[in-house]
Amino acid sequence: MSWLEIPAESHFSLNNTPLGIISVKGAEGQRVGATRYGDYVVDLSLLEQEGLLASAFKGSEGGARFNQPTLNDFAALPASTRSQVRLAIQQLFASSSSTLRDNPDLRARAIHKISDVQVHLPLTIPDFVDYSVFPAHGLGAGRAIFGEGIPLPPSWNTLPMAYNGRAGTVSVKEEILRPQGQTKAFSAAREVGVGPSKALDWEFEIGAFVGTPTEDGTALTPSTALSHIFGFVLLNDWSARDIQAFEMVPLGPFNGKSFATTISPWVIMPDALEPFKASKPALLEGTPFEQAEYLREAQDVMSNYNINCETSLHLSSNPSLAHPISLANFASAFFSFPQLLTYQTYSGAPLRTGDLLGSGTISSDAVEGASLPSKGCMLELSQGGKVPLQVGDSGEERAWIQDGDEVVFSAWAGEEGGKVGFGQLRGKVRSASELKATE
Amino acid sequence: MSWLEIPAESHFSLNNTPLGIISVKGAEGQRVGATRYGDYVVDLSLLEQEGLLASAFKGSEGGARFNQPTLNDFAALPASTRSQVRLAIQQLFASSSSTLRDNPDLRARAIHKISDVQVHLPLTIPDFVDYSVFPAHGLGAGRAIFGEGIPLPPSWNTLPMAYNGRAGTVSVKEEILRPQGQTKAFSAAREVGVGPSKALDWEFEIGAFVGTPTEDGTALTPSTALSHIFGFVLLNDWSARDIQAFEMVPLGPFNGKSFATTISPWVIMPDALEPFKASKPALLEGTPFEQAEYLREAQDVMSNYNINCETSLHLSSNPSLAHPISLANFASAFFSFPQLLTYQTYSGAPLRTGDLLGSGTISSDAVEGASLPSKGCMLELSQGGKVPLQVGDSGEERAWIQDGDEVVFSAWAGEEGGKVGFGQLRGKVRSASELKATE
Repeated sequence: MSWLEIPAESHFSLNNTPLGIISVKGAEGQRVGATRYGDYVVDLSLLEQEGLLASAFKGSEGGARFNQPTLNDFAALPASTRSQVRLAIQQLFASSSSTLRDNPDLRARAIHKISDVQVHLPLTIPDFVDYSVFPAHGLGAGRAIFGEGIPLPPSWNTLPMAYNGRAGTVSVKEEILRPQGQTKAFSAAREVGVGPSKALDWEFEIGAFVGTPTEDGTALTPSTALSHIFGFVLLNDWSARDIQAFEMVPLGPFNGKSFATTISPWVIMPDALEPFKASKPALLEGTPFEQAEYLREAQDVMSNYNINCETSLHLSSNPSLAHPISLANFASAFFSFPQLLTYQTYSGAPLRTGDLLGSGTISSDAVEGASLPSKGCMLELSQGGKVPLQVGDSGEERAWIQDGDEVVFSAWAGEEGGKVGFGQLRGKVRSASELKATE
Repeated sequence: MSWLEIPAESHFSLNNTPLGIISVKGAEGQRVGATRYGDYVVDLSLLEQEGLLASAFKGSEGGARFNQPTLNDFAALPASTRSQVRLAIQQLFASSSSTLRDNPDLRARAIHKISDVQVHLPLTIPDFVDYSVFPAHGLGAGRAIFGEGIPLPPSWNTLPMAYNGRAGTVSVKEEILRPQGQTKAFSAAREVGVGPSKALDWEFEIGAFVGTPTEDGTALTPSTALSHIFGFVLLNDWSARDIQAFEMVPLGPFNGKSFATTISPWVIMPDALEPFKASKPALLEGTPFEQAEYLREAQDVMSNYNINCETSLHLSSNPSLAHPISLANFASAFFSFPQLLTYQTYSGAPLRTGDLLGSGTISSDAVEGASLPSKGCMLELSQGGKVPLQVGDSGEERAWIQDGDEVVFSAWAGEEGGKVGFGQLRGKVRSASELKATE
């Protein structure tokens, strides 16, 4: 328990202690590292400056880690230092600790209401890679596009599907512009359409940030890789299905994905999710190849996490009303994040601090006790647009996302009073008519 | 003509005036901006500091542009300022100019022999995108993999094929490690191989660096895009064909490409290539779709360049001997770089200074008067490894590149005395046995 008031239903319990980058609204707006508890955020640069984190940082060279506009310097530290600092922050807010509680001056300067601050991109992102490791999505997307009976690729068991994304379009923006491009939908259209996408979709993913970097020419193993992960965020891999469908053969997704990827601003550290570890699904039967040994994890390794992933839709006709439309479980991931880092470095390629790895669309078996579908994108929910989704009891339906609609992700592990969650990732779609041409 | 001695055959004539980043060997190694003439490099930070470029920079805010470890700040300036600065540098070295010539102290400090300096990555690269815009390569690669009669994708006329690459593995290194991965070659192999690639290839490309950035939500047009290009380099898109073949369906190339991309260190500015402009090939007949209007250039626009692209191979058995194996012409590009920038921003996605766009493998019709094949990769030269290439009169053959082999690209426009060239891009392959596993 904390001496700070944290609502029982908050994703940001003392158990969580996420990290982010904030600036105080109205002030000069200097960006600093922060954590969040309930509806408060804490300026960690001040706690660090006052020496309250000194013993946790002991042994790690370098200047102020939180008096910085990004978390890259902090994330690059060894995992053991990052863990110590997290514990030291938690400790300052524990009921039993008086250091900060009984220092009203520092409290007033360091603790802000969430409504008084602005959140920013938590790290500079050198590279963004997007994976696809949920079998339910692989099968569901194939079915939506090509019809029944499309199997997973033969390499599914042996390697995680992936493509490089565009780091420059990853942001914490809460509004995105509908992209324009060349489209040819899934029908056997004779004409190529040119203009705004008519099949705008979202994909619910979890992203992992690389912390401690690797050296060029050095391969990780599944057992060493976790220590190179700084933490996790929600990730919306916005997708213009009609642009993607026309462009992606044979080199993969490009403009249909690279126009916008949004992430949630609070980075959840692996230590916070440790109590919610889960095992991975069994290998698929009937695929021709064995899993490669360098990627294999021991049978009893719990490298997945039980995380509830909920999507709600706010329709443009009634923006304040949330319609839950999907609930899935992250534990269906077929490859764990440590395996993804291993896969990426096996070639000898380095990972840099701030590199972002997306999990791919989180679709799973139905979540126990839930009546919602467990599919992580409209492509699956509307069967490629052919069977529009009835949106709650609104009387409206959606094949794809319309201008003015808002997509809201939420994800959490654990129970009331000790939830470890990501908060919300909100994205409202603005009309393509706002795109400008250059001078 | 210059008062500085520049060999007639040099790529780095007064007409060129490329930009790069150097440090003086042995000294403290501070990185600064530089140009190159013949076998000399010129420290531009000193010329700038002495005020010799002041009038060219006039009107552009900001501090020293060349006393920086990268050229990003300079590249971000408006195209007109970049052009003025290039002319001011050229002017200082013209025979008629005495300012620098008659200042022996400054000459001694600013002008170094190329052998006395180290070259570095010229810009920080936020994003790397690789295109494929040479029809001869599209057809040749398809033929090598799938056999005769494979047509170009139906979207070939309407959009440039592209995928996002890995910015973190782009370098000016002259040695690369053979990557390891999961391989399944082009045969109907039952087994997935795991280990070092057995089909290591190179791809001869030209890369364009973005200079002046664009704003998020702002689309370029073919006529406005050139002013956003800072300059050009040679680019080797190293490719492990057996890894690539297994991984790339359906999301495109990943580990088979992202282990290493090397570029030449001197950035050739568009102004230097202006005299070598060329028109684009005609649209292909028989493809079902018209070119989209937003991408279309006027018929008489010369947006291509006549650039000779030569590849030589140095075999591990005789490393000092160059065997020329290919000569192609860049003017076969089916889309121009201004069109590529337009394509990429039409979605609303921004371009950042330092973003690198690869042209795709430069294969062309045979170059007039040349007896060498005009194919820009081993995949085409050895027909997918099935018909090994006889390497000159060495008596040796290569299906793919072996450990210890060195691949050397060279490219130039113009004639002796006024050549505008890229110099060489060299890459020697080291054994995968040098890869390390992490602690």
